[in-house]
Amino acid sequence: MSIKRRILSEAEKEALAQFVAPENAASAQEILAQYGQDHTEDLCFLAEILLKPARLEELQAIVRYCWENEIPITPRGAGTGLAGGALPVAGGVLLSMENFNQIVEIDEENLQVTVEAGVITEELQNTLAEKGLYYPPDPASRGWSFIGGNIATNAGGPRALKYGVVKDYVLNLQLVLADGSVIWTGANTLKNSTGFNLTQLIVGSEGCLGIVVRAVLRLIPLPSKRLLMLAPFRSAEGACAAVSAIFRAGITPSALEFMERAAIDRAIEYMGGSPLPVPEETAAQLIIEVDGHYLEPLYADCEKIQEVLDQFDCIELLFADNEEQQRQIWQSRRNVGQAVKSHSIYKEEDTVVPRAKLPQLLAGVKEIGAKYGFSSICYGHAGDGNLHVNIIKGQLSEDAWQNELPKGIREIFELTTSLGGTISGEHGIGLVQRPYMDIAFAPTALQLLKNIKTSFDPKGILNPYKVL
Amino acid sequence: MSIKRRILSEAEKEALAQFVAPENAASAQEILAQYGQDHTEDLCFLAEILLKPARLEELQAIVRYCWENEIPITPRGAGTGLAGGALPVAGGVLLSMENFNQIVEIDEENLQVTVEAGVITEELQNTLAEKGLYYPPDPASRGWSFIGGNIATNAGGPRALKYGVVKDYVLNLQLVLADGSVIWTGANTLKNSTGFNLTQLIVGSEGCLGIVVRAVLRLIPLPSKRLLMLAPFRSAEGACAAVSAIFRAGITPSALEFMERAAIDRAIEYMGGSPLPVPEETAAQLIIEVDGHYLEPLYADCEKIQEVLDQFDCIELLFADNEEQQRQIWQSRRNVGQAVKSHSIYKEEDTVVPRAKLPQLLAGVKEIGAKYGFSSICYGHAGDGNLHVNIIKGQLSEDAWQNELPKGIREIFELTTSLGGTISGEHGIGLVQRPYMDIAFAPTALQLLKNIKTSFDPKGILNPYKVL
Repeated sequence: MSIKRRILSEAEKEALAQFVAPENAASAQEILAQYGQDHTEDLCFLAEILLKPARLEELQAIVRYCWENEIPITPRGAGTGLAGGALPVAGGVLLSMENFNQIVEIDEENLQVTVEAGVITEELQNTLAEKGLYYPPDPASRGWSFIGGNIATNAGGPRALKYGVVKDYVLNLQLVLADGSVIWTGANTLKNSTGFNLTQLIVGSEGCLGIVVRAVLRLIPLPSKRLLMLAPFRSAEGACAAVSAIFRAGITPSALEFMERAAIDRAIEYMGGSPLPVPEETAAQLIIEVDGHYLEPLYADCEKIQEVLDQFDCIELLFADNEEQQRQIWQSRRNVGQAVKSHSIYKEEDTVVPRAKLPQLLAGVKEIGAKYGFSSICYGHAGDGNLHVNIIKGQLSEDAWQNELPKGIREIFELTTSLGGTISGEHGIGLVQRPYMDIAFAPTALQLLKNIKTSFDPKGILNPYKVL
Repeated sequence: MSIKRRILSEAEKEALAQFVAPENAASAQEILAQYGQDHTEDLCFLAEILLKPARLEELQAIVRYCWENEIPITPRGAGTGLAGGALPVAGGVLLSMENFNQIVEIDEENLQVTVEAGVITEELQNTLAEKGLYYPPDPASRGWSFIGGNIATNAGGPRALKYGVVKDYVLNLQLVLADGSVIWTGANTLKNSTGFNLTQLIVGSEGCLGIVVRAVLRLIPLPSKRLLMLAPFRSAEGACAAVSAIFRAGITPSALEFMERAAIDRAIEYMGGSPLPVPEETAAQLIIEVDGHYLEPLYADCEKIQEVLDQFDCIELLFADNEEQQRQIWQSRRNVGQAVKSHSIYKEEDTVVPRAKLPQLLAGVKEIGAKYGFSSICYGHAGDGNLHVNIIKGQLSEDAWQNELPKGIREIFELTTSLGGTISGEHGIGLVQRPYMDIAFAPTALQLLKNIKTSFDPKGILNPYKVL
């Protein structure tokens, strides 16, 4: 399936470097080390050469050369991934897409934008907002992550709840295939029933089937009104249970985030303060946002939400008074991952279940933790049933961390699938979740995935040792 | 790619019939003829045997036998397709899914439903509505078509505009593969970044990659308020141009349908009257619907829509006064296809472009018609840029119809792709659009589609001669 790790000769490195401008090739160890990491744990792998093509033709020439000479290619976005998808574990070429950083065309008439893969998500969103347009997917990393990386992992974020994930916005992709040829996967239309859905097959395929160069994305009008609430709960289970009750009441919030107490504390510590007071008995909190084009219905939604929360263990419902407070609340949520990471070595599991199963998932994670002796900090996109489980190394021995913990992780994933869920909601499989794919897919289905990989990349040069 | 047409021996037919109850097998000519058609033109093909399994194990046994004996299988839903996808062109087994007609579970807590493939779309929608739940995809055929067929073609309908097409609601599929084995393609979650997206690859694959038995569908709360307007225009181009202007004004209607005058007249004739008076100078009309959970913002939207329409060739904006009038307006729209068909032999092309390109598409279709001597009746989901072009045989000679018209259709499709569109928005490729796939896909991309087909169905027994 995957090509073997490959040492490049000096001649090969020189040939490859020729395809790009001198400043866009590097093989110095310190640069390779810098590019050898992403946001996944403390992992680092060295490629043999880093290449940063600036034009499609350069990119095609590199891929064609690698195809002919059977050299592994690891495509890389901004390196903010949490599953090791951008780590060059097979050596060879690390292909950074950072020079493909243009917003090619904003088509206001059709509510579409054409972007290159290296555009930063938040920069795109800001540019669009100036025109009253909205591209909703907003992973916590949106200030750094690239659209191409977001596509590779089918990223989500808080607003996915109401607006959907990346796959719901990708209309068409320009893709460089394993042999260096280039195709468009679909059409620039909202509807498409023409042949098998190549576009959707590529979204979430983590660079294993082709390299996304450009994307045509669907846009929607930017909602002009937003209300943000913070709801502290006396029990984490109560908070989780309130989540599905809000939807059953007919409300679709634009975000519904869960943070257990330890996550709140880490975030406050990291930020040096809290945007709103945290009642002492708080065991967990929900961040609830509603948005739209008119204020009145949002207030009505908030009233209904208050009624629902009153039936659970909610301490009080706090409203963010102004934009600055809204910003701080969001910042505290977006910073949890970094906050936890700054505190301890950790592994992040991206569990996802049908939302009403969240209380069972949370209880199960804690139980499994007790059995294997690890503590965890849980938070995430509760409205989507997407719980990020940060497993803390803390006092665990290196042996327990390396050899026992995987059994605990396996149990967590077996729990998610038994609840109708799966092993990654928005981070992807990459390198680190690959050993658990047998939990998500039966052998027959796994074989289909392998067949698809082979039909796109028979030599296995694209992002080897990832996903499968 | 596709298996050859296959005559079955009496022994093979007997063996196949054994897999189902006696009343669920038939090889009488009149029954095969009845099941040999769908809603595509006047086409009819005879299978060698019709089988209607009633349980998964029966279905698997049939497929396994066909796999071992290299017998073509044509899966069939309700037979309402417009691209010939359910026609058994290769003989063999016609596999009707009509006995898989159970709504298995409505999960109100998670807003999901599990259905069998043979459930009628409208029946599902009505059952869900009683619980305040909504499954939006609503093809014109929804009163007869099966969910499985809707999935096979990635169907849409008027509400796709605001709510998306079938692919946006399918979470997980139970699929019988070419060798008779069965898998689930994904998980019952709103987010999923676990492996390549098998679920989305199957949606729209027209039974060529596997046979969908069950589907887990996402639901949303049913919008309780709806307003419907009818806007007659002095020019069809004006009506088309107004469409993208409505979106640019920040409004997302729940439906935005276009009918040119001939389509209006056919529908009135077919229904024996018009729900609202049609001003004499009407060249085309838009049906505009807004929906939501509160009335006030809908009235505000209607005011904005009125302002936009005033800038175009709109004669007046008429409101449907009551539910009965709303129903009649929708019925007149949904009946156009049947109305045209009852009037003349016709071919239906399912063109789709970015919505602002509609005026160019419409003008181009008429120009190409003039060149090749055919008239057309155009209508469709203008908000999605999805224009159904009904080409009328009228006085065309059989020779022109069979040999010249395909060149005209080719020109229409070349026009749609040159405008950023493609050759089917929601009907699929099936049998009749297959000769035009080279317009939608470059040879490299087409080869990828073929590779995918081969990796799922190496013997080519599933729905032969369709799509590819």
